[in-house]
Amino acid sequence: MVYLSRLEHFNAAHKLYNPNWSEERNKEVFGPCSNQNWHGHNYELIVTVKGQPDPETGFVIDLKKLSNLIREQIINKVDHKNLNLDVPFMQGKLASTENLVMEFWRILEPLISSISSAKLHCLKLYETPRNFVEYYGE
Amino acid sequence: MVYLSRLEHFNAAHKLYNPNWSEERNKEVFGPCSNQNWHGHNYELIVTVKGQPDPETGFVIDLKKLSNLIREQIINKVDHKNLNLDVPFMQGKLASTENLVMEFWRILEPLISSISSAKLHCLKLYETPRNFVEYYGE
Amino acid sequence: MVYLSRLEHFNAAHKLYNPNWSEERNKEVFGPCSNQNWHGHNYELIVTVKGQPDPETGFVIDLKKLSNLIREQIINKVDHKNLNLDVPFMQGKLASTENLVMEFWRILEPLISSISSAKLHCLKLYETPRNFVEYYGE
Amino acid sequence: MVYLSRLEHFNAAHKLYNPNWSEERNKEVFGPCSNQNWHGHNYELIVTVKGQPDPETGFVIDLKKLSNLIREQIINKVDHKNLNLDVPFMQGKLASTENLVMEFWRILEPLISSISSAKLHCLKLYETPRNFVEYYGE
Amino acid sequence: MVYLSRLEHFNAAHKLYNPNWSEERNKEVFGPCSNQNWHGHNYELIVTVKGQPDPETGFVIDLKKLSNLIREQIINKVDHKNLNLDVPFMQGKLASTENLVMEFWRILEPLISSISSAKLHCLKLYETPRNFVEYYGE
Amino acid sequence: MVYLSRLEHFNAAHKLYNPNWSEERNKEVFGPCSNQNWHGHNYELIVTVKGQPDPETGFVIDLKKLSNLIREQIINKVDHKNLNLDVPFMQGKLASTENLVMEFWRILEPLISSISSAKLHCLKLYETPRNFVEYYGE
Repeated sequence: MVYLSRLEHFNAAHKLYNPNWSEERNKEVFGPCSNQNWHGHNYELIVTVKGQPDPETGFVIDLKKLSNLIREQIINKVDHKNLNLDVPFMQGKLASTENLVMEFWRILEPLISSISSAKLHCLKLYETPRNFVEYYGE
Repeated sequence: MVYLSRLEHFNAAHKLYNPNWSEERNKEVFGPCSNQNWHGHNYELIVTVKGQPDPETGFVIDLKKLSNLIREQIINKVDHKNLNLDVPFMQGKLASTENLVMEFWRILEPLISSISSAKLHCLKLYETPRNFVEYYGE
Repeated sequence: MVYLSRLEHFNAAHKLYNPNWSEERNKEVFGPCSNQNWHGHNYELIVTVKGQPDPETGFVIDLKKLSNLIREQIINKVDHKNLNLDVPFMQGKLASTENLVMEFWRILEPLISSISSAKLHCLKLYETPRNFVEYYGE
Repeated sequence: MVYLSRLEHFNAAHKLYNPNWSEERNKEVFGPCSNQNWHGHNYELIVTVKGQPDPETGFVIDLKKLSNLIREQIINKVDHKNLNLDVPFMQGKLASTENLVMEFWRILEPLISSISSAKLHCLKLYETPRNFVEYYGE
Repeated sequence: MVYLSRLEHFNAAHKLYNPNWSEERNKEVFGPCSNQNWHGHNYELIVTVKGQPDPETGFVIDLKKLSNLIREQIINKVDHKNLNLDVPFMQGKLASTENLVMEFWRILEPLISSISSAKLHCLKLYETPRNFVEYYGE
Repeated sequence: MVYLSRLEHFNAAHKLYNPNWSEERNKEVFGPCSNQNWHGHNYELIVTVKGQPDPETGFVIDLKKLSNLIREQIINKVDHKNLNLDVPFMQGKLASTENLVMEFWRILEPLISSISSAKLHCLKLYETPRNFVEYYGE
C-alpha cells in the first residue's frame, strides 16, 4: 500500500457567521472572522489516495487524472468564489475549514473510486500556513 | 547602510472591479477576480527599512517598534476585512496589489521616519506565493 | 472526526549534555550539540486536536482559545529562554526534541480536554526544517 | 513511542516509460513524463523512525548516524544520477515515485534496525512540492 | 513605478559538460553535475516587470497575460525536457543556470514590451532552493 | 552581469545585551532578547556574487568552491556556537543581525575576489523567517 498525494490551491472569501445568533454573539464567538463584509484566504488542499502501484505504470493513480478530477469537482467550484454565497454544497452550512473538508470528502470519495482502484485516504486543507484540518472520512 | 526587513501577514477579501465599466467588460478584463461576491487571500507584507546600525543597540531600527507600527497602521486596518468596502484609504481605488502597496507606502513612510533615523526602503506584498509586487516610493 | 492543527513558534537556546558523563563522552555522543556555551533554534510546534465539529460553530475547537492556551502554557515558558536552565519542566532532563515534545504533551493534554470536548491527538515539533519529532501520547 | 524524522534531498533525472509498450501508448499514458531525453526533479526524502528515547541521550536514534546512513545508502546512489540508467536497485523497474519509495524502504529498513533499537516507520518522498508519496512498509 | 512578479515552475534534465574538454577535466570542474546520463531539477522562475499601474485596471500588467506569455514562450519549451538536447535556444551552450536565465531574457524582454507598456526588470531562476541566479539584462 | 546566490544555514545561541547599561535598561530596550541565559535561532545566510559567466563553464563562480568558502570561513565559526562568547570576530560587539552581516562581509569580500573574478554583491541573513537583514558593503 502506497499513499500518493496531490496539492492544489484556491483563493476564496468567506465569513464565520451563525444566522440563528445575534450580531453580538457572532462577534463574541467568531471575532474578526465574522466581519459582515467577508475576509478571505489562499487555501491549499492536499488529496491523499492509497493503493497498490499498477505493475504496468508504477502508479497508484494517474496523477494527471487525479489533478483534473480535483480541479473539475472542487477547485472550479470554490476558486475565486465566496464560500458562503457561491458554493452550492456549502449552502446552509457554516463555512468553517472543518465543514469544507467534510464536504470535499463527500464529493471526491466516490469519484476517485470510480476512476481507479485507489481509495481516498485523507484530505488536508490549509486555511493559512498556521491553521489546517485533516479528514479521513470517519 | 544595512537593510532590515520585517514580515507581517493579513487575510482579506476583495474583488477587481471598475465601476465605470459594464459587467461584461469587467468580466473580460478581470476574469474570475471580478466575482461580484468577492474572493480573498492570505497576504504577506515585507517592510524593508535602511539605515546605520546604532552603536549602542546594534539596531537599524527597533524591530518590536517596527512590528507594532505595521500592525497598528496597516494590519489592523486590513486584516479580516474587505479591501473594497472596509478600508478607508482604499475608497474609490481599484483593490489591486499595486494600489494597495502604494497606499501602504503613503502611510508608513512618514511614520517610520518619525520613530527612527531609518528610512523606509521597500514594501513587498504577496497576494499569493506566485503573485507579488514591490514598491520603492517612486 | 476531524483533526485540527495550529502552528506556533519559539526561539530558544539549549545544549545536549549528560552531566553523568565525562566531557569527552559528551563530545563523542553529542558532537557540536554539546557546545558548553549553548546553541539555539527557531522551533515550530504544531498542535493537532481531534473531535466532532460543533454544529453551532462548525469548529472542532475554538482556534483562538487553542492558540492562547499554547502560548500561555508552552510558548511563554520556552520562547527566548534557555531550555536547560530557564524551563522548570525540563529541569533534570536532557533537552532533546524528543524529551521536549513529551513534556509539552503532559502539560497540554489535560488542559485541552478541560476547555473543549476535543482531544489532543499529536504534537509535532520542528527543531530545524530538517529535524523534527511527533508524539501521540503513548 | 516518539517518531523522529530527518529530511535529505537529491537531484535526479528520470523518465516514465514502459519498454513493453509502443511509443504511442507511452505518450498516451505518461504524457510529457515519457520524454525520451528525460526530465528531472529536486527530490526531498523524509525518513521517520519510531522508538523510545534512550534515557542517557534523550534520543530515539542518533540523528547524525541516521543522516549518514541515508546519505551512504540512498543519496549517494541517486543524487546527480539518472534513476532509469544509473541506479542498480531500479534496474528493470518503472522509475515512478511509488517504486522509488518502496525500494528505499527495502534498503533502509534492515539497516536502521541494525544501528539502533528504533524501527523505520515511514518514508515520504516529494517529487515536487505538489506531488509526493508515503510508504509504511506494508 | 511598481515592480510586479509572477512565479512559474518547470522540471527538466540537464548536465554540465564542455564538449571541448576531456572526460577527466569535465569531471574535475563540474563534478557530479557532469554525470553523462544527466540529472535534473524542479526549476522555479520569477519574472519581474516594472511600470506605472494603469488607472483603469490598477495593473502594471495583466498577470493572466504575463503568465500565459511565460508559459508559451518559456515553460512549454523547457518543462519535462532535456535542456542540453531538446531546447533549440540552448543548442551549443552550456546548460548552466546563468546561461539559461540570459536566454530567457532574450526571449521575454521584447515580448513583454509588445503586450504592455511595462518593461521586463529581472529574471530570478532557482535551480534548487539553495542555488539561484538573477539577471537584469545588462 | 549575472547575480548568483548560495544559501547556507547555521544554528546559534545569542543574546542582545549592552554591557555599558544597567540590567533594567537592557530589559527595557532588548526585552526578552536580553535573557541572561541566552536564546537562539536557525539562521539562513544567502551569499550573492556578481560577474560575467565564464564562456568555458557557464559559471559566474564555481558554486562548490563558493559553498566551501562560506562553510570554512563563516559556518564553521558560528554553527552550534554562542555568538557572544565563542566567535572571535564578534568579540566586543552587540550580537545583532545587523552587526553579524557586516562582519560576515568583512571576511567574505576579499576571499571571494581571491578565488574568482566575481565580486561579492549582497549578504542576506535571516534570523527568523520574519526578521532578516541585507548588506551591500556600503
